[in-house]
Amino acid sequence: MKVVIVGAGNVATHIALAFRAAKIEPLQIWSKQYQNAVILAKQVDANAIENLSEVDQNADFCIIAVKDDAIASIVGELACFKGIIVHTSGAVKLDVFRGASENYGVLYPLQTFSKNKTVDFNAIPICIEANNLQTLKRIAELAKKLSSHLIEVNSEKRKILHLAAIFACNFTNHLYALSAELLHTNDLSFDFLRPLILETASKVQQALPLEVQTGPAIRNDEQTLKKHRELLANNPQLLNIYKTLSDSIKKTQK
Amino acid sequence: MKVVIVGAGNVATHIALAFRAAKIEPLQIWSKQYQNAVILAKQVDANAIENLSEVDQNADFCIIAVKDDAIASIVGELACFKGIIVHTSGAVKLDVFRGASENYGVLYPLQTFSKNKTVDFNAIPICIEANNLQTLKRIAELAKKLSSHLIEVNSEKRKILHLAAIFACNFTNHLYALSAELLHTNDLSFDFLRPLILETASKVQQALPLEVQTGPAIRNDEQTLKKHRELLANNPQLLNIYKTLSDSIKKTQK
Repeated sequence: MKVVIVGAGNVATHIALAFRAAKIEPLQIWSKQYQNAVILAKQVDANAIENLSEVDQNADFCIIAVKDDAIASIVGELACFKGIIVHTSGAVKLDVFRGASENYGVLYPLQTFSKNKTVDFNAIPICIEANNLQTLKRIAELAKKLSSHLIEVNSEKRKILHLAAIFACNFTNHLYALSAELLHTNDLSFDFLRPLILETASKVQQALPLEVQTGPAIRNDEQTLKKHRELLANNPQLLNIYKTLSDSIKKTQK
Repeated sequence: MKVVIVGAGNVATHIALAFRAAKIEPLQIWSKQYQNAVILAKQVDANAIENLSEVDQNADFCIIAVKDDAIASIVGELACFKGIIVHTSGAVKLDVFRGASENYGVLYPLQTFSKNKTVDFNAIPICIEANNLQTLKRIAELAKKLSSHLIEVNSEKRKILHLAAIFACNFTNHLYALSAELLHTNDLSFDFLRPLILETASKVQQALPLEVQTGPAIRNDEQTLKKHRELLANNPQLLNIYKTLSDSIKKTQK
């Protein structure tokens, strides 16, 4: 199978590396910043291309892994591509391809990628979708080379998965960042929290999060909640988040 | 060393088990609900006691591991105790003991505990504090039996650590719970998110959270942010959290 990768960001990089590890060598890499395409192409023995018109017409798949807002215009530029076009987004509907391609679909890895952190792609759930059964089968065949956890979902369900992932991953990481800042401001090391963060994530690998909720809000420990609000009185951003999430925990309990 | 444990909740249970694993057998367990003291006492070969007046005066330590709001009144009832009294709270000041005891301190394990989940106590940072150097040494000696990560911090810094832990652990778990609920409502399994949750926590074991923030808010992906707000239009609680945290991510970026 021959694949072309459009994009050179976090997702594009990890997908390209995972293909390579699965013995599927990406043919070409395109990026808005040509220099980024060159860097990724070197890592996976592919050719960097400057224009989307250079995309190899013999490729089986063209994989668009760019910022959501940029997908539609790239799809327009790939109208001549004869293979299967897929995007890797959680939030963009399948019909972004309608009219621009005959066989198209989605290959959305439900994971957070940062360039310098390797991931075990085989443990990542991959959501797949396509505009016809034959194409779905081909995409599944390709996705199976990357992971053993395939989920066939339509655009509506994928949107929910993506939104849930934002709460469980992006927002969570932001809470880590806020706590790191709070510690830093008080000359305390973020190292003190690292075991707790890992344990919190580890706990819900078996249990449901509702069953293992701890802390002053779920205990209705009003004295402590009040003390914390006082402690955050001069930090309106943190205070607002503290109140919002504590209130939400109390509501969930009821 | 002989210890008495006051409390039979999550923290008391894990501390009692950790003592036992370290060959320090708790002498007695007291709980507001006597039945809970009996259950924990059975697990660690201790005696359950009904009244605090029964606390063994020969014990070296009395460890108060109860809800924050209840500590002060228990301290009042333990005024006759001759050993070292400590509490295990992140948010209660050392001077809760003042006037009621001669030698007292804090032993606060920075971790989230649920009864049915075992933890590796040795990896847990333990914050210690005391009202004199000799007592601090004795508490350190005891804490070292549980963990190799001791941090000597005063009540002010401990309060900050505890608050940071609430952001990084309690609030994070609540976000997991909200995402689980969102999936459940849409007939999707929470299993799909579990690898993502673990990877998100795993990433910040080396990196700082700010360096690995991903998602639409940090990318300023306005189309996606707008779509998500629309998707949550009939769920004011989630919508409010979505907006609050997305705005906060954008601010941090600046």
